Amino acid sequence: MHAYRTHNCGELRASHVGETVRLSGWIHRKRDHGGVLFVDLRDHYGITQIVAKANSEPLKILDGLRVESVVTITGVVVGRGSEAANPNLATGEIELSADVVVVQSSAEELPLPVAGEAEYPEDTRLRYRFLDLRRERIHANIVLRSQVISSIRRRMTDQGFTEFQTPILTASSPEGARDYLVPSRVHPGKFYALPQAPQMFKQLLMVAGFDRYFQIAPCFRDEDARADRSPGEFYQLDFEMSYVTQEDVFQAIEPVLAGVFEEFASGRSVTPAGSFPRIPYRESMLKYGNDKPDLRNPILISDVSKHFEGSGFGLFANIVAGGGVVRAIPAPNTADKSRRFFDEMNEWARSEGHAGLGYITQKGGELGGPIAKNHGEEATRKLIAELGLGPDDGIFFAAGKELQAAKLAGFARTRTAELLDLIDKDRFEFCWIVDFPMFEYDEDAKKVDFSHNPFSMPQGELGALETKDPLDILAYQYDIVCNGVELSSGAIRNHRPDIMYKAFEIAGYSKEDVDKNFSGMINAFKFGAPPHGGSAPGIDRIVMLLAGEPNIREVVLFPMNQRAEDLMMGAPSEVSAKQLRELHIRLVEPAGAAKKDPAKVVAPG
Amino acid sequence: MHAYRTHNCGELRASHVGETVRLSGWIHRKRDHGGVLFVDLRDHYGITQIVAKANSEPLKILDGLRVESVVTITGVVVGRGSEAANPNLATGEIELSADVVVVQSSAEELPLPVAGEAEYPEDTRLRYRFLDLRRERIHANIVLRSQVISSIRRRMTDQGFTEFQTPILTASSPEGARDYLVPSRVHPGKFYALPQAPQMFKQLLMVAGFDRYFQIAPCFRDEDARADRSPGEFYQLDFEMSYVTQEDVFQAIEPVLAGVFEEFASGRSVTPAGSFPRIPYRESMLKYGNDKPDLRNPILISDVSKHFEGSGFGLFANIVAGGGVVRAIPAPNTADKSRRFFDEMNEWARSEGHAGLGYITQKGGELGGPIAKNHGEEATRKLIAELGLGPDDGIFFAAGKELQAAKLAGFARTRTAELLDLIDKDRFEFCWIVDFPMFEYDEDAKKVDFSHNPFSMPQGELGALETKDPLDILAYQYDIVCNGVELSSGAIRNHRPDIMYKAFEIAGYSKEDVDKNFSGMINAFKFGAPPHGGSAPGIDRIVMLLAGEPNIREVVLFPMNQRAEDLMMGAPSEVSAKQLRELHIRLVEPAGAAKKDPAKVVAPG
Repeated sequence: MHAYRTHNCGELRASHVGETVRLSGWIHRKRDHGGVLFVDLRDHYGITQIVAKANSEPLKILDGLRVESVVTITGVVVGRGSEAANPNLATGEIELSADVVVVQSSAEELPLPVAGEAEYPEDTRLRYRFLDLRRERIHANIVLRSQVISSIRRRMTDQGFTEFQTPILTASSPEGARDYLVPSRVHPGKFYALPQAPQMFKQLLMVAGFDRYFQIAPCFRDEDARADRSPGEFYQLDFEMSYVTQEDVFQAIEPVLAGVFEEFASGRSVTPAGSFPRIPYRESMLKYGNDKPDLRNPILISDVSKHFEGSGFGLFANIVAGGGVVRAIPAPNTADKSRRFFDEMNEWARSEGHAGLGYITQKGGELGGPIAKNHGEEATRKLIAELGLGPDDGIFFAAGKELQAAKLAGFARTRTAELLDLIDKDRFEFCWIVDFPMFEYDEDAKKVDFSHNPFSMPQGELGALETKDPLDILAYQYDIVCNGVELSSGAIRNHRPDIMYKAFEIAGYSKEDVDKNFSGMINAFKFGAPPHGGSAPGIDRIVMLLAGEPNIREVVLFPMNQRAEDLMMGAPSEVSAKQLRELHIRLVEPAGAAKKDPAKVVAPG
Repeated sequence: MHAYRTHNCGELRASHVGETVRLSGWIHRKRDHGGVLFVDLRDHYGITQIVAKANSEPLKILDGLRVESVVTITGVVVGRGSEAANPNLATGEIELSADVVVVQSSAEELPLPVAGEAEYPEDTRLRYRFLDLRRERIHANIVLRSQVISSIRRRMTDQGFTEFQTPILTASSPEGARDYLVPSRVHPGKFYALPQAPQMFKQLLMVAGFDRYFQIAPCFRDEDARADRSPGEFYQLDFEMSYVTQEDVFQAIEPVLAGVFEEFASGRSVTPAGSFPRIPYRESMLKYGNDKPDLRNPILISDVSKHFEGSGFGLFANIVAGGGVVRAIPAPNTADKSRRFFDEMNEWARSEGHAGLGYITQKGGELGGPIAKNHGEEATRKLIAELGLGPDDGIFFAAGKELQAAKLAGFARTRTAELLDLIDKDRFEFCWIVDFPMFEYDEDAKKVDFSHNPFSMPQGELGALETKDPLDILAYQYDIVCNGVELSSGAIRNHRPDIMYKAFEIAGYSKEDVDKNFSGMINAFKFGAPPHGGSAPGIDRIVMLLAGEPNIREVVLFPMNQRAEDLMMGAPSEVSAKQLRELHIRLVEPAGAAKKDPAKVVAPG
């Protein structure tokens, strides 16, 4: 018989009754039932009930152990009978009658219980992550993460992609965030940087002729923590393809994303591959008030500026006359909502720093609210008819300069749907946002600049740059969005030095600027570069969506805390003078760090 | 028709003749044949011959382009006829008659040619790695590497392992090599370290109950370059299992290694899974002269010390009398080798710093050499009979203190086999080296110390530590070796704090020492730790073996050079004063770095 186990703790069934078996695992729970001891023995695969007879040697040993001790138990599988069976447990038909117990590891008192779903302070959870990870929900999340990544790999391979590892010790990249630096021992005064993304490398892989690359790529940004981003490292499904149009990229990756989501959706519906909507950026900003629309939300925003030209509602009339816009956000079936519901939305908007939300109410076609009154009944009914609203649908209005009004409308759309419970949680709704503008007018600098990524290919290529108004030029750039979460940006890259110089010239940069700052890429493109493009959906965000977890720390094995510390491993930590010497650096004392606050020193005395 | 291609450059066959198709790729070669231009168009998938008719527009365009320019060619597939067909090319039955050529990217003059197998200086290859990677052999190596890793992942998953990502920004680990450090912005004066291996994390994963972990893990050691290790990062198949014996580890991983090697062996034979020999460390040191034997080498070393007790060959008799040993290395079928062959082996051994190699020659049973003469014919024939040698087999002898003699014998075994061409290059011979001693006597410190890994479980556990001579205690520690290359160490870990304290006590360390230096691990083990073990075969070495490449830089996508520089990306590089300030560090000028050598300053003037 194996030293530790013949079966795992999720494996035994009624068919095993009568067999002598051996299990190993952690003591999950103990219950004393009239002298008989029941133990839930847990491992990675499940839980099996152990029974130790009154006054037996196994009972004595198990009784003396704390929960989370590790034991090996040999005994006979016994049927529980239909009455005692536990239908919630895969092994619930049987129990193991303990004959011999061997203690592999006895546990001290726990700083964090494993059984149960009690909430514990994050610091405790991260300091004792090896205990936290034994808990059911987080254990399942981490396994889900592994399965998702494994599924992504398989699907990418099926699509003809090959995984390559790009360097982690590399040079600073122009991604815009702060780099983590690594001092060089061999080259005094010089530093490596950890990659913010393997952008340069994946493009060079295309230049090197590898055609379809992907990588579950670790990326590093020295930025402060957010709910959806840990300090330190994160992972993305980095991919790039040669000789492709934007549509080819979509067709290659939709089956991967839809496939993975379907595999782990547990019954939730997923936008089918091949039918992810393509929504132009400008349409998205209008209809959803942002460029990462949650398509589960049925509310659509409309521009109703024209309705308020010369309107009796002077505030909106003036805004429109001044070049601003008015956006309407329907609030469906709100006949039964009190005035307070509408007023509170308005107050909420103000508390968030916006100008406020006007509104019209309807009860069986009866209009309410100051806008309807001032705008006039006929005009209001015309507006309602144009929006296709029913007699019980209210409307919120966001008015102001276009971008601000659009954003406020977007927030109002989301909040209205949340308050009215209109968002179907059982759907994963994907879309592509396309046709991002290549350039925008920078109000501060009073000049045209790139709006997103200077390295994307402009639609119309060199011809467009030479002939069109820069602000009318669109880029082959796209975002992939799911349920209002931006999973990734992507683009067809600009692989032509001549087009790149021209694009930078429009944004006010000389050929010398470009050569100086982007020489690596430009030079590589001079030796034969294929047209190419790709994207990099965030792995952590995909897993968060599938696990239904709002915090990234619930889907990462050993995350750092908000202060960028690994409490379990004690990182970051002080290092020896010898190490610093070898790296040719010395520490700078923070100004005044060694001094104590005199007031504080005096006060306790 | 697709903008860039209807097929790839490795796809067209005779069955496509007559179709209008579009290909994109790099101009690999151009040949002018009586006014007709032939172009080999290359992409990731293959090469297709393009033909441009005399005086045609396509010819004009193609003629004006340098090789490695990228073009899109539309035309009709034409059969070559049996005479012109190229059987060495998958697309050799056809060619594409170019109607329209679109230039996607025109190449400047190349610093490094892509076609052909010429050798180029490493610096040029690494600086223009995106060109180097287009070359046939390195391109194939990198694809092989990806396929090997993908196959390993699939096989590990099939064995019930789950892949997890462990942190890359973490704390310094006690692996013994130099860490790469990353200064913390948030915590002045503190540093993260890049992991030398995820050893702590994988053990904590077992403590967290995850049972079977693996990872294609990036590891980082700030050590100088070797042929089989790049500076910077390398990858290992890191794995760990709970509730296992050493034999379980072997049985889990043999199918993975044998399977991967069989998949990519291209006809070379591989030790079948389930039959990797287990060779005890002491036996390996005796029979092969090292603990990483190349089992393709048929020569076996024997200890013949007893034969020389009181021998007429005084040198060996004295060595044996003084506690030393004599090892015999057969040199099979060397009847036709001149005296010089044997003398040169002796000279080679001396030039390598060894004491020299004695020898006995045989020609049809006739003995030769000074040892045979002094040792006496009868005694020599007895020795030969005991070694089971034939009448044409010579013998080399390595004598001295046991370890030195063993090592010299090992070198002589390898060299003899190489000179006699006895190593079958078409085999992959795996073995496990087991039963490493737990402790050794440190001659310098005059004390018992750990011989390899202090964290391995001693065979016999606490009982052995308490009762046996420490130098007789073996560890559950093992190496996996293939063709004389150590792929990895591994061990069943010591998961019991009581046994760990005792083992450290034997090596002269107090409980306080252990608690201070290894608190993370020891503390985790106090809350219920399963028995566990694993290993971590090197990915780069596996690929090197399969690709038949002696240098790691031939199987890594973007390696650094020997000076730990990435010439293509320009890493490491200088960073801004602002970055240093944010990281609370300042540079130390190397002593005298700013000063010029006065002699040199004067000389040119």
